[in-house]
Parts: sequence; structure tokens; C-alpha cells
Amino acid sequence: MIGFVAAAGDLAMVVGEDRKQFLFPLRAGAQFQSHHGILAHDDLIGRPWGSRVETHLEHTFVLLEPSLRDLLLLIKRRSQIIFPKDLGYILLRLSVGPGRRVLEAGTGSGALTMALAWMVGDHGRVISVDRRPDMQRLARENLEQAGLAQRVDMVEADLADVPPVSPPVDALFLDVPNTEMLLAAALRHLRPGGSFGAILPTANQVQDLLRELETHRMTDVDACEILLRFYKTVPARLRPADRMVAHTGYLVFGRATEPRLMDDPDGRARSGEPDPEEIGE
Amino acid sequence: MIGFVAAAGDLAMVVGEDRKQFLFPLRAGAQFQSHHGILAHDDLIGRPWGSRVETHLEHTFVLLEPSLRDLLLLIKRRSQIIFPKDLGYILLRLSVGPGRRVLEAGTGSGALTMALAWMVGDHGRVISVDRRPDMQRLARENLEQAGLAQRVDMVEADLADVPPVSPPVDALFLDVPNTEMLLAAALRHLRPGGSFGAILPTANQVQDLLRELETHRMTDVDACEILLRFYKTVPARLRPADRMVAHTGYLVFGRATEPRLMDDPDGRARSGEPDPEEIGE
Amino acid sequence: MIGFVAAAGDLAMVVGEDRKQFLFPLRAGAQFQSHHGILAHDDLIGRPWGSRVETHLEHTFVLLEPSLRDLLLLIKRRSQIIFPKDLGYILLRLSVGPGRRVLEAGTGSGALTMALAWMVGDHGRVISVDRRPDMQRLARENLEQAGLAQRVDMVEADLADVPPVSPPVDALFLDVPNTEMLLAAALRHLRPGGSFGAILPTANQVQDLLRELETHRMTDVDACEILLRFYKTVPARLRPADRMVAHTGYLVFGRATEPRLMDDPDGRARSGEPDPEEIGE
Amino acid sequence: MIGFVAAAGDLAMVVGEDRKQFLFPLRAGAQFQSHHGILAHDDLIGRPWGSRVETHLEHTFVLLEPSLRDLLLLIKRRSQIIFPKDLGYILLRLSVGPGRRVLEAGTGSGALTMALAWMVGDHGRVISVDRRPDMQRLARENLEQAGLAQRVDMVEADLADVPPVSPPVDALFLDVPNTEMLLAAALRHLRPGGSFGAILPTANQVQDLLRELETHRMTDVDACEILLRFYKTVPARLRPADRMVAHTGYLVFGRATEPRLMDDPDGRARSGEPDPEEIGE
Repeated sequence: MIGFVAAAGDLAMVVGEDRKQFLFPLRAGAQFQSHHGILAHDDLIGRPWGSRVETHLEHTFVLLEPSLRDLLLLIKRRSQIIFPKDLGYILLRLSVGPGRRVLEAGTGSGALTMALAWMVGDHGRVISVDRRPDMQRLARENLEQAGLAQRVDMVEADLADVPPVSPPVDALFLDVPNTEMLLAAALRHLRPGGSFGAILPTANQVQDLLRELETHRMTDVDACEILLRFYKTVPARLRPADRMVAHTGYLVFGRATEPRLMDDPDGRARSGEPDPEEIGE
Repeated sequence: MIGFVAAAGDLAMVVGEDRKQFLFPLRAGAQFQSHHGILAHDDLIGRPWGSRVETHLEHTFVLLEPSLRDLLLLIKRRSQIIFPKDLGYILLRLSVGPGRRVLEAGTGSGALTMALAWMVGDHGRVISVDRRPDMQRLARENLEQAGLAQRVDMVEADLADVPPVSPPVDALFLDVPNTEMLLAAALRHLRPGGSFGAILPTANQVQDLLRELETHRMTDVDACEILLRFYKTVPARLRPADRMVAHTGYLVFGRATEPRLMDDPDGRARSGEPDPEEIGE
Repeated sequence: MIGFVAAAGDLAMVVGEDRKQFLFPLRAGAQFQSHHGILAHDDLIGRPWGSRVETHLEHTFVLLEPSLRDLLLLIKRRSQIIFPKDLGYILLRLSVGPGRRVLEAGTGSGALTMALAWMVGDHGRVISVDRRPDMQRLARENLEQAGLAQRVDMVEADLADVPPVSPPVDALFLDVPNTEMLLAAALRHLRPGGSFGAILPTANQVQDLLRELETHRMTDVDACEILLRFYKTVPARLRPADRMVAHTGYLVFGRATEPRLMDDPDGRARSGEPDPEEIGE
Repeated sequence: MIGFVAAAGDLAMVVGEDRKQFLFPLRAGAQFQSHHGILAHDDLIGRPWGSRVETHLEHTFVLLEPSLRDLLLLIKRRSQIIFPKDLGYILLRLSVGPGRRVLEAGTGSGALTMALAWMVGDHGRVISVDRRPDMQRLARENLEQAGLAQRVDMVEADLADVPPVSPPVDALFLDVPNTEMLLAAALRHLRPGGSFGAILPTANQVQDLLRELETHRMTDVDACEILLRFYKTVPARLRPADRMVAHTGYLVFGRATEPRLMDDPDGRARSGEPDPEEIGE
């Protein structure tokens, strides 16, 4: 529940006249310092969100509760994050929402983790797998700052070594190198008919993953990319910004069908040998 | 909570070999008929989601629980809907999530309504305003089919005639003609620092709305457009699809600052007269 | 030299109110027939270009000399043509212009042939290689209609079987399957430092060609794609068209360096064996 | 006519291992100096184009004749130039080619001037109008360096003050502020049925120009934008570059119809009064 006024303990964002954004938790007695001047937290606490506040150097900041997009873009990073333009579509395509269970690998800096945790709510669950302890630590810090850590199980392991989670998850997302080699291991965690997604930097990886999705008889397979173009917001001179991000990654999606490959004791599906069930067709 | 097997009463989707999708609620004794043949609901009920099922004409369908994206694309429409590529980004930008309160106008066929209702969960609330009773009826049907109607208040009225909702909402989205003329009325419903968004088909409307957002001293204003490009998913011949949607709408976002225009009894902000608070600067 | 008035023998274009375009040579006594009515060529001959003319059904057409883009889009096709958005960039990247010599394979329906022939002028030369006699015939017809056939040598052969042209050409363009397998044969026709280009439908082909360009030590290598987005031209409702072409092909370019692979009698460059010249580095 | 070997007086380009390009005329006895070392022109003169040459610091450059695209990107600039992606399409849409007469305003740094001069050949003509003497001087230098100055008439004047050129030109291109205000003056120079084009940074300018094109009864009107996306050329990791140019300008095109506005002594077309010719329809 968000109050109308900023309270001690809230995560606050201030936005300067140059649109630079800063994120910090409000604490009685603390100070926010920038080269535009100082803001006393005590002058922010109790003010309505959206208030304009002034530093001792008379620079105006607007006090805002960070939006989910702000949280995603302002987290501490040590790896490429998944961008909001991709995240929004991933959430829809994986049917993430209140009460859902989602597994992701790898955790990275935790941007997707945060978006998933935000959307599954208190009754859902996010399981985030990464073998790198430094990334897990960073992601946890980011989640804690956003107040979302209690919705996430952090698992420090290779995805292939994680025993099947129980109950299996509704959705699965991979942001790892060699996605196609981890697919079989990953699908062990996914419930019947569950949704799969991945982000891949190169066309070569998309080709490899699509081949593997065929082997696993995934259905409703899509590959796509999303381009976001900003405009300069001057009404008398409306025009796109000069430059834009041209590529963050290819998105690949699919749905698990039953029976699975892993239910196939002889590995026929993988070997390309004809499946007896299909011979009669 | 989604079960692993399809149950009577569930909303089911079947996907044919040609990737055509069909949506229907499962009812004991009922039949799904297509030109590829008939499926008895009784043969679907109790099957794991993701199962392959065959019609009497030996056409294979996959039985799936519809994803949120499927729901959005398969609803009955009598108006242009907001597309998933835009919806995902809107949800992030407006910080929609479990427990949030959101107001939208107009309802249209209810695609955004459905996405909002999905994401706010049982503890959030969607208020959907549209003056056209036929659209409200259609949207309600779509919401009921998706099991999301109980999270939505449908308000059949002109937005300008709706008394300020209490408590005010966390986020506000407009998909109406003459957005700029409705902005002042719409902002009466928004809490301090709350998020505003709109979708607009033409550049002219973007120019008009940006002018109005300046008048209302909105901050963190962005205008953008999102392009989604699908690929043909043949790994040996990876290439973009031949054609794509080139335009659905421009997205404009902003955050409310305090004090508002409506707190300004003399209308100085609108009139362009200098604001006494700023004279000292 | 284009006159100001349409003359018998000129290639004319008429554009209807619905923007449909028709191309035909003007001949005394002939008639243009459409479902919008009839135009007598005698009523067109002697009229200024740009004139509005009316059929007996009172439908207005505008009489225009076809632009190069019109010629390219209106030719008879039996294959995918290269589109103007790509052609323009190809011309610049290959430095096509008056007096230049260019070789292309394959001819296809002759759209690129026509653009090249237009630009090299009477003192340049286009050599167009295709093994399919039907395509060569079609392209020749299209070139003759446009008055450009005398600038083109049509060669009905496999590119690999064509003896090196003499003198070698300034620029080389490939629009063939298995581009990477034809590259070595194609480069035999290219002068020192000459420009190479190709259009390729799939990412797989781009990967294959890039590998081969490395083997041939090509320099200034670029791969790109060009997107063209049209707008609806209603000034009060300016907006992009609803749909657009999402993919015609990837463009790959490079420049030949000296000495070439074919000057290398031992095939060391191709074999990956270290080049003695480079061992000292 | 381009020789196979670099000759004194030729305009040469050298491309370093980092793909940086440098343009200079070859002169006996001169030196090219860079932070990668020195190249004596005498060591370049007489070498085949495409040769790899080494500085005294053992950095390798490739010696190339600059392509038209290279010339356009490497000219000295004091203004935003029109980019090759746009130039190529403009040339096709305006039917520029050997023997054509083209008028452009304003000259700017001369990138379009250079592309036009390249394509019209020795028998065509470019008239380039700009009121700023500094820009005219800069463009002339760039044209002289490229050996194209003798195909261009530079006119230092306001376009509105230039008496109609005789004979009128085949094509007209405007890259000026307030395009819509100069349109009437510009069209006086265009032959019947001739082609018009313009580049405009903002949507507002497109709206204004489209309104004016209607007034002038232009036909075959198009507005569009062109996006060019480069790929990283590593075959094992094929992917788009991270960032791209998102906007250079909107392109607007049209064809002049007859009779013109300026043939209309009573200004009826402009005044919106019904045209007697059309009353009977």
C-alpha cells in the first residue's frame, strides 16, 4: 500500500531539472547530496509524492515513488540487464501475474527477478538460479532495496544441478549462455503446458535454440525482437530522438507439450528415430 | 491457481497444426467443432495441459491454458485493441501490479482492462470508464470469460462527469479521442505523484497532449513507440517475417506533480501568468 | 532527354484517383482501358506531363513520366525483386554512376539491372548473368520497355562458367542462392579495390557469406538491413501506415583487397595455413 | 575512368585496422600522417587499389578509391548532412540519373549536391541554391576535392529571389527551414510533371508541407522514413549493432501536376473556391 505522502523507510526517487534520477531510502536525519546541492530527508518525509523540492543551491527536484520501470533501470548492475521494453512483453507472454510461480536462470543483476517478484505478488513465488555468488549477492541487494526479496528463492547452483522444483513452475525464463544446452534441464522444472521464454544476443543462438525446441516438441514457438523509439517531447518540434538502442536481444518463446521428452525412456524423440505413437498416422 | 490437468469450467485454448487458436470454457458433454473436425470436451477434461489431442478427422490440436497474451488477442472485439507489445510496456511504466488501483478510459473491447485486472490481483482494483453501453457490455463479457470481472468496476459515463474516485488511483490510462481535452478531468482521479499514460494514433494528438501536459506541470514525460518484429522460426532459414505491424499508436507517459493545477484557484498555471512561488527565483 | 509534353513512343504512366498506377508506351491510335474507363492515347500525346485527363467514365488520371522507382515497382515480375529502399543504398555503396562497369548475378526479373543501367548511362556497362533463359527473356523485355536494353550485356550462363570479363568491372552484386559458394568465381570479374555487394534473405546465409569474405580478405565489410516506413499523408492526422514490409533481405558489402586469393597458387589463404608474409609480424 | 592503380592526383582513401577512414589527394612527395604512423604518397602511387600498405609503425592500411558513400560521409561538414540511407532513396524517387537537371536548396555542406553531381554525369546539371556564402564555399571545396564541381552551378541567393531557371529542372529537392513557405517559389523551377522531394526533421513540418502540397495539387505524394540497422560482422555471433541512428529526417515526395497554381490567375485553387472545371463533376 502506497501512501500519498513520503514516509521514513520508503524508497524514494528524486528527478532533477536535467531529468537525472536518484534512488534512495528515506531515513530521518539523513541527507541526499548531489552537485546540484543538498536535500535533507527530513524535508522530504511527510511531503506528498510529486512535490517539487529545492536544494540549498535552488535546484528543483521532484520527489517521486519510483515506478517499476525506474527500479529496473536504476538498480546496481554488473551485467547487461533485460530492458523494460523486453520485460513487459516477457511478462505477458509468460502469463506472469499474482499467484504465479516462475523460475529464471541466470539471475544476473536481478532486473528480471525484480519484475517477476513485483508481478507475482505475495502469493506467488520466484525461483532465481545463478551459479555466480557475486551476482546472487548483487541481485539480493537490489531486491531488498525494492522490498521484494521475500518473494524470491535465490538458488546458487548450475541450473543442471538443481533437482526438479516441486510443484513445477508455471513459467520458465532463461538468460544464460548456451541456452540450447540447458533447455532439457530447465524444462524439468516446468508444469504441463507451462510457458518458456529466453533472451539471446545472437542469431546463431536463436538458430540453436529453435532446433532444440523442435526436439522437445515445444508448441506456440515465436521468435521476435522489440524496438523502442523515444521522441523528443517538444510539441512544436515533435521528432524521434536522434539515436536509439538497436538491439538488446532476440526473444524466443514456446509452450511445453505432453508427453515430454524426459518421459521418453529410450530417447527416441531426441535420436530422430520414428516414434511408435506416430507410425500409425 | 492453475491445475496441471484441464478441469470442467476452465477456460481452454486449442492450437491447431496451422497455429490457429480457439478459446472456449470446458463443459462436460459439450463439443468443439472446427473444419478440422470435432473434439469432445469430455476427452479434454482431465488431460494434462499441453496434451496433443486428435479430432475425428485426425487433425492434432494442442490443449493449452491461454496465456495472458492469448486472452488479449482472442477477445471479441468491436474496436481497435491495445496490442501486447504496448500493453507490457504500459504495465511497467504505470507500475501496475498486485494491490494497485488503476483507472482507465475508455474501456473499448476491454483488452487493457483485462491486462490491468490480471496484474492488480484480488487486492487491487480497476475502474474502467466508457460512455458507450455496448462497449461496456462487450468488455464485461470478455472479462467474465477470463474470470477477471470481479476485479473491475465498470463505469458507464463520460470521464468528465465521473466524480473524483476515492481514494484516488495509483495510475491512470487514457485511450480516448481528444485526450488533451479530457486530461484535466482525468487527473482529478490520480493520487499525488501517480502515473499517467495514454495511447494516441496520430502525431497531431501527441503534439496536443504534450502541450497540455506542460500546462499541468507533469514531470518525467516520455513519448515513444514500440515496434515488434517476428521471425520465421525455421532454424536453417532464420529471417524476419515478411510484413509487420508498423503502427498501433504513440505512447505518452508522465507523472503528476504537486501542487496540481486544480489546487490553483486562480488558474494562474493555465493562464501563463507568473506563479508567485517562482517569482523569487 | 525528356520533353515537357508526352510524345508518341514515350513510356507513360497514368495514376488514378485511387493511386493505382499503369505503365504503357504511347502509340497513335491506341487505347488504354481500365475499369475506370478508356483513355485514347491520341488524347495523351502532346499533353504536358503532369496533366489531369479524364476517361469517358469521368475518372481522373494524372499523366506522368514514370520515375525510376515507378519503373522498378511496375515491371513484370516472376521473382522477388530488389526493392527501391535497398536499391538506392546499393547504388551508393557500390559507387554506381555514369561510366561505371557493373556485373550482377542473377538477373531475376531485372529490377536491379534496370537501376544499374539507368545510373551507368550511355558510357557505362552492365553485365547481367543468369542461367535461366526465361528470366533473361523477362528482364530483357522489361529493359527494352524502359529504353535501357542497349546498356546491358545479358549472359545466359552459370556465373562460375563465365570467363573473367575484360576489363574487370568496378562493382559486383550477387542476388543468388548459395552466395558464399559463388563468391570466389564472382570475384574473378572484379577490378582491384572494386566494390562487392549481395542481398540475402536469411541470417544463415549472412553468416556463411561473412565467413567466406574473411577467407577472401575482403575489407570494409558491412552487413545491414533497411526499413522503410510510410506515413498516411493526411496532415490533420499524420501517422505511420498500419503495416509495413518487415524484411526484404540483408545487405552485405565489402571491398576487394590485393593480392587476391586467386593470386595465391598454393591456396594457403583458404587452407588456413599461416601466410609466410605474416609470420614475421 | 578509374585506373587499376592509384595515380598522382587521384583522391585516395586509406582504411586502418580499426576501420577509421582517411581521405586525401595523392601528390608526389607528400606524406600521410596518423598516430598509427606515416605513409609516403610515393609508396601509394602506382600501387593497385585494394593494396595493403604499412606505416613505419607497422600498422596496416588498405588503399582504396573512395566510394560515393565514403565521399558523402567523409566530407568536411558544418551542418547536418543527408545520410546515404536517405540519399539513395531520394535519387530513385527523383529519377536522378545521367543527363538530368536537378535543383536543390539549401546547399549545406554539399552531401546531396555531391550525390546529385555524381549521378547526373557530364551531360546533366545540378543547381544548388543557398543564401549562406560560408556554406556555398564549403560545399564547393568538397565538390572540388571529389572532382565534381564542374557539374554544379552554385547560386548564392534566397530561393525565393532566384528567377525561374530555364529550361526548368527535372527534379527539385528542398532541405531548408520553413519548406512549406518556400514551396511555391521552388515549384517555379520545376518542369511539367517533374519530381519534388524534401527532408524535414519534425512531424510538425511534415504536416505543414503536406497541407501546402494539397494546395498545389501535387500528386503521387508520399511521406516516409528510412531506418538503417547495421550488424556486427562476426559470423559466429551475428547480431545487430547495439545502437543505431533513430532519426535523420522525414522524407516527403510528390509530382507536379498541370495546370499549376501559378498558372491560376485568380488564385482559386489556393482560396478554396470551387474550380469551374470541377463544378460539372
